[in-house]
Amino acid sequence: MEQIDDRQIKEDDRHYVLHAWSKQKDVQPKIIKKADGIFFWDDSDKKYYDMCSQLVYLNVGHNHPKLMEEFRHIGEIPLASPGFATASKAELARKIIEVAPKNMAKVFFANGGADSNDHAVKIARMVTGRYKIFSRYRSYHGATFGAGNLSGENRRFTVEPGLPGFIKFETPYLYREKVKFENEEAAAAFYLDRLNSQILYEGPDSIAAIFMETIPGSNGVLIPPKGYMEGVRELCTKYGILMICDEVMSGFGRTGKMFAVDHFDLEPDIMTFAKGVTCGYSPLGGVIVSEEVAKYFDDHVLMTGLTYSGHTVSTQIGCATLDIYKDEDLIEHAAEMGKVLAARLEQLREFASVGDVRHIGLFAAVELVKNKQTKEPIISYGMDYGKDAVGLMKKFVGLLMEQGFYTYSHESSVMVAPPLIITEQQINEAMDLFEHALMKFEREDLFADQPLMAK
Amino acid sequence: MEQIDDRQIKEDDRHYVLHAWSKQKDVQPKIIKKADGIFFWDDSDKKYYDMCSQLVYLNVGHNHPKLMEEFRHIGEIPLASPGFATASKAELARKIIEVAPKNMAKVFFANGGADSNDHAVKIARMVTGRYKIFSRYRSYHGATFGAGNLSGENRRFTVEPGLPGFIKFETPYLYREKVKFENEEAAAAFYLDRLNSQILYEGPDSIAAIFMETIPGSNGVLIPPKGYMEGVRELCTKYGILMICDEVMSGFGRTGKMFAVDHFDLEPDIMTFAKGVTCGYSPLGGVIVSEEVAKYFDDHVLMTGLTYSGHTVSTQIGCATLDIYKDEDLIEHAAEMGKVLAARLEQLREFASVGDVRHIGLFAAVELVKNKQTKEPIISYGMDYGKDAVGLMKKFVGLLMEQGFYTYSHESSVMVAPPLIITEQQINEAMDLFEHALMKFEREDLFADQPLMAK
Ligand SMILES: Cc1ncc(COP(=O)(O)O)c(C=O)c1O
Ligand SMILES: Cc1ncc(COP(=O)(O)O)c(C=O)c1O
Repeated sequence: MEQIDDRQIKEDDRHYVLHAWSKQKDVQPKIIKKADGIFFWDDSDKKYYDMCSQLVYLNVGHNHPKLMEEFRHIGEIPLASPGFATASKAELARKIIEVAPKNMAKVFFANGGADSNDHAVKIARMVTGRYKIFSRYRSYHGATFGAGNLSGENRRFTVEPGLPGFIKFETPYLYREKVKFENEEAAAAFYLDRLNSQILYEGPDSIAAIFMETIPGSNGVLIPPKGYMEGVRELCTKYGILMICDEVMSGFGRTGKMFAVDHFDLEPDIMTFAKGVTCGYSPLGGVIVSEEVAKYFDDHVLMTGLTYSGHTVSTQIGCATLDIYKDEDLIEHAAEMGKVLAARLEQLREFASVGDVRHIGLFAAVELVKNKQTKEPIISYGMDYGKDAVGLMKKFVGLLMEQGFYTYSHESSVMVAPPLIITEQQINEAMDLFEHALMKFEREDLFADQPLMAK
Repeated sequence: MEQIDDRQIKEDDRHYVLHAWSKQKDVQPKIIKKADGIFFWDDSDKKYYDMCSQLVYLNVGHNHPKLMEEFRHIGEIPLASPGFATASKAELARKIIEVAPKNMAKVFFANGGADSNDHAVKIARMVTGRYKIFSRYRSYHGATFGAGNLSGENRRFTVEPGLPGFIKFETPYLYREKVKFENEEAAAAFYLDRLNSQILYEGPDSIAAIFMETIPGSNGVLIPPKGYMEGVRELCTKYGILMICDEVMSGFGRTGKMFAVDHFDLEPDIMTFAKGVTCGYSPLGGVIVSEEVAKYFDDHVLMTGLTYSGHTVSTQIGCATLDIYKDEDLIEHAAEMGKVLAARLEQLREFASVGDVRHIGLFAAVELVKNKQTKEPIISYGMDYGKDAVGLMKKFVGLLMEQGFYTYSHESSVMVAPPLIITEQQINEAMDLFEHALMKFEREDLFADQPLMAK
């Protein structure tokens, strides 16, 4: 690498790099100069708690010594295209199957979350011979044409006109549901009944798969009501539909279990993964399929593929990453720390601007409102990329950053998803910062900007 | 990594890995035990000339010492998500723009070829506000839903029912064209007239982009007739359509120039790349856009993205790779070696089973026929994944492998695309092996299998 100073890096970045999901003239990126564990330091030497693990992938934290060490061993296994067997690909596939739900049998490797979802849809269509794909509003599955069409939010609109047969149903979102339920089971029954109807309206025999984020992440960590996931599984089984769980964000310990599906009493037919499998140290994703799905491809051509399926370096880094989860008991630790985080999050409910907090393990969101009684959201649905509506959310995220609490928001929800290695003390420190930001946010002068804000 | 013996690696591979484009029971993978430059050795210690650079990506050859060295420096630049500026991302974007056609201005990074193409389509739709996308029969652009729908061959069929507005036109394929032309210019005029008509039939104002492999690779290295590419550029300019060149396989020196478009007198609006940018040492791809396209996104949100856009490790490896092309004069060397290869390939025309040879730089295909007069192909169109038709092609590729000439075939064409570092002597050695395989192939007993074969 050339030795280039920060000013020049930013200059080159502005000149030559197109940044995702942005107007380029609004992009004023910082540089991460140093990073360690749950912390990083920017180019003005400011220290941050990385409370969203970058984009919810750095589960083992920044600059993990064992992964740094593994890069020293790159080259020991020669690069090979997908047709070869390689030590790292075979070992990682085995390791993934060992920690996946019992019915899971084989892994197809891809590069990231989006393309893994595209391949999963193709696999489901091949196995079932059906073409319709159900997925949910308030979901994000990625930005390729398949994953984009699965997604149930405005990031889908640039892959439209969309794929025929991609159909959306609702995600249970109890905080904003107009119907009031006696308990979670009643809510689950309500949503399942509607899903069942929609399946019948669409014709069960044409539906290949129901595709869901096990727990929708970007759209606000929407935890399903008790019995809902098991109910979807039953509907899938009843109608011969494959149940596909997108574990790209929720997988690999994020929720305090290896996969989010492990919280429920069910086995999906297919799961997709990315992020946590390498913690972003090398790009990798993939599709895990059940014994039954795998069997189909013994005698039928798996008509999908990519140059880097089972990439040698990425799978080698994946093996080292899975060892870390195990050797450091990170999944158990995440479950423990989840309790600490939960306690702090629940306390936030006392704030006037906090409408809801949702959390499972170290996967959490804080949903802000303009008015706690009416639940008026800070950002009306779909206005994330709108002109003015984002002002107040931006202000809050800006306040968090000022405090050294690094995270991002989507709609009116702020993500809280630190590296799984975080300690109790660090959680408390970070959540103190969060509370300071909330207090500043609720100060007269900020509210004064917003005539609609009720105090 | 665990120390696992070859038998166990193969066992785990068979048990746990889904292999692309295959019936799993047919997969009997070898292991690459050692690799160096243009050579690799399998688990029975057999040595191969890697005459397809794995999947046409290992342009700098196996185990390049400078890239191995670069992995020792991973970690010096902290991992950062796409919103940050990073030294490696900024440097690589600049380096790519420096070697790209003059009008090119900015780079959007993705993971591989397929997803890069998906993002390119989205970019073209955003900029033009139009939705139709023209691409060609006899092309391969990848296996995600966007790239798959662009592809003009049977690997598209599993992403169907397809995307509305994705329309196909012909690739000039003079060897199999029924019309006979006086010269290449006349051929170009013929195809351009047909394309012009199709644009008018579809309505120019609804067409966002014409998407082409600059030189179709997998489908047999189909080199466009003189004047054709410039003619497509003119049509694009006339109708306000963006010209997108897929340089995933043909880019980074493969054709003896940095990009295949450099052979023509034109500037595309958008180019996509992958493979050669890192030579597969780390997964990376992307979209290069012109100044004009880039400008649009100053004030408009670029509504696409992915977790690993501008991945720190991959862009760092990309920088080192681009340095190698430069420091080792690899592009010039590829052009020189292209002449050596061309001479050997042209000699193959004397073989009864060789219908055509096509080559540009170190990008070449040998098309086999059952009958030189009738041009009857070895594999009828679309039968690559058919039951029996592949027997004879498989036999020939098997014979090549036996000789230690490693490559793959598609339809009736065999790919010849060695690492750009290959020497004159190595080309001659490898082409000797190719000729031996052809001689064996044409022996009585092999022909006897195929009653249709004319000798
Ligand atoms: C649940 C889920 N699926 C898929 C994706 C897409 O993954 P990628 O950005 O690697 O394409 C994301 C990205 O955040 C995600 O959260
Ligand atoms: C011209 C071209 N475009 C796109 C692709 C897809 O690239 P990937 O396999 O990295 O998705 C390929 C793959 O061979 C290709 O040759």
